[in-house]
Amino acid sequence: MNIAILFGGSSYEHEVSIVSAITMKKVLKKSTLQFVFVDAMRDFYLIENDKMNSKLFSSGAYKKSKKLMLKKTGFFAEGMFGSKSIETDVVLNLIHGRDGEDGKIASLLSFYAVPFISPRTEASALSFNKLYTKCLAQSVGVKTVSYEHLSCEDVREITMPYPVIVKPVRLGSSIGLSVVKTPEELDYALDVAFEFDSEVIIEPFIEDVKEYNQAGCHTDHWELSIIEEPQKDGFLDFDKKYMDFSRDAKVHEAQIPEEIVQQIQESFKKIYDPLFRGAVVRCDFFEIEGEVYLNEINPVPGSLANYLFDDFEAMIMRLSRNLPSEENIVIDYQYIHSIQSAKGKA
Amino acid sequence: MNIAILFGGSSYEHEVSIVSAITMKKVLKKSTLQFVFVDAMRDFYLIENDKMNSKLFSSGAYKKSKKLMLKKTGFFAEGMFGSKSIETDVVLNLIHGRDGEDGKIASLLSFYAVPFISPRTEASALSFNKLYTKCLAQSVGVKTVSYEHLSCEDVREITMPYPVIVKPVRLGSSIGLSVVKTPEELDYALDVAFEFDSEVIIEPFIEDVKEYNQAGCHTDHWELSIIEEPQKDGFLDFDKKYMDFSRDAKVHEAQIPEEIVQQIQESFKKIYDPLFRGAVVRCDFFEIEGEVYLNEINPVPGSLANYLFDDFEAMIMRLSRNLPSEENIVIDYQYIHSIQSAKGKA
Repeated sequence: MNIAILFGGSSYEHEVSIVSAITMKKVLKKSTLQFVFVDAMRDFYLIENDKMNSKLFSSGAYKKSKKLMLKKTGFFAEGMFGSKSIETDVVLNLIHGRDGEDGKIASLLSFYAVPFISPRTEASALSFNKLYTKCLAQSVGVKTVSYEHLSCEDVREITMPYPVIVKPVRLGSSIGLSVVKTPEELDYALDVAFEFDSEVIIEPFIEDVKEYNQAGCHTDHWELSIIEEPQKDGFLDFDKKYMDFSRDAKVHEAQIPEEIVQQIQESFKKIYDPLFRGAVVRCDFFEIEGEVYLNEINPVPGSLANYLFDDFEAMIMRLSRNLPSEENIVIDYQYIHSIQSAKGKA
Repeated sequence: MNIAILFGGSSYEHEVSIVSAITMKKVLKKSTLQFVFVDAMRDFYLIENDKMNSKLFSSGAYKKSKKLMLKKTGFFAEGMFGSKSIETDVVLNLIHGRDGEDGKIASLLSFYAVPFISPRTEASALSFNKLYTKCLAQSVGVKTVSYEHLSCEDVREITMPYPVIVKPVRLGSSIGLSVVKTPEELDYALDVAFEFDSEVIIEPFIEDVKEYNQAGCHTDHWELSIIEEPQKDGFLDFDKKYMDFSRDAKVHEAQIPEEIVQQIQESFKKIYDPLFRGAVVRCDFFEIEGEVYLNEINPVPGSLANYLFDDFEAMIMRLSRNLPSEENIVIDYQYIHSIQSAKGKA
């Protein structure tokens, strides 16, 4: 199968997306891969397989690669004798953060009828924003922890007890996150978060809360990964997250009680179906006193959480054959015809 | 000012979008208009001004028009000597329904850095879906009427008393709506709604409820329209909606108590700001026992609700000069550089 790996993007997570894409070379061994890079200026480039290393991008040398255009049905290279299609069965979206997770790339690919693996526009817009993720969870009956919401113009006051965690509503990979232990520290944490977003959510910070990650998708059946208990080496920060984006070896399954596994899997399915059809997503859950709470949805998780699955590549192939299709709308101009005959003109 | 009117789209409301666009000729008299048509196949065409009539589209004659491509910064016509940019200061999105209101067009224009008047991707995805509109209203403290939510796979049971109104979650212009007076009628109403969408919401149907429409935008200041009390000639249906899309003369202001006006305006501002910056939207409210409830948000209302404003064209010009700008993300490859120096390679 020809898989186009789409990566980069105008995003704070541009660089980890490059790491994710490079990882795919080690993970998708049986497929023919094309690497389509979106640079900071949102130009598309076709990167040759053997040139896929991080230096190509950091040095700017990628600019010598073939430029691509996105048109109906796929990517095209412009040449002397017109444009030539890049043969692709499916696009795998690996752009993290803005562009890739906010619905823009999903919109482009949907509009131009390019088959792709990633959440569709609506699922992306909802899960990219931590505030709307709360709404989504609520609408399907999945619990989330309590929260307060502040915009940069609001009075900087909260009512929940400390410690709290401050998160920009629209960023992944822990960017702009702070744990705030006392009221005096709140101001600085908000300054940091508002550097990245005009809105934040604030949640109780629960020391040593049990955290579980569940990835999965629906192909012709449910394919749920093993559940991982992410390592918490002190506090999460951006550099430590590198692990998630470059990992290609399967991790060990968390040892958790069967009733918690059930809750996690049921919650995952409620969130996923049908909104996330066509995507491999990772949901991060908390367990608090025997109850499971959704922490966040990763619409495009680092290296697509391949390390949580037994045979990731086979699953990607099954998923490619089970993508959601847009409803076909027939436009027959009946309405305009009826206005024309009623009015004699229109 | 050069305004490109974008209309058509792969949408159930394709035809009313044509009506909306034709109406703009009568409304935007001082501007230079370019008409960019998106046909059912999602090809872009530049329609000459004097050919803008509904027959051009219903007859298929539009296909002889110049084909356009969307690329960075705008629309381009392909010619013998390369591609030529269509000079445009701003794109006015008038695609109703799918493509135009669901975030796809907003994503395309944002991605390619084309200045445009319409809600951005996130605002579109939320307001296009009546279920998520409820979430949005709740998150900013605006009341909505109670509802139940069914997907096509759910058991067809509701708990609220009859009569109820059944609405597909993702359609405008009253498509697929039914008022259901008795439990026996529910099945048929759901069959109709599920023709158009896999999900519906069901709300109490309140006979003779007071309905008020408020349109507006934020330019360099708030510009709220007069409040209209839409005519309810029996029950709304698709044909009667034609009025809304072709109207170009200002309507009469509803005579309503000052405290209700205040509530409507405050609710509009809470919904609009900052999510809908860059757009002219119309919010439809109910008044029930002196309280205002959001019924729905029209992210791209028929003919942009021009008939509710004093000087629509001047407002559009002010809005064009006050569009929200995307945050500039600098990608400096610091992270990759640090991995490279730590590892000796990456």
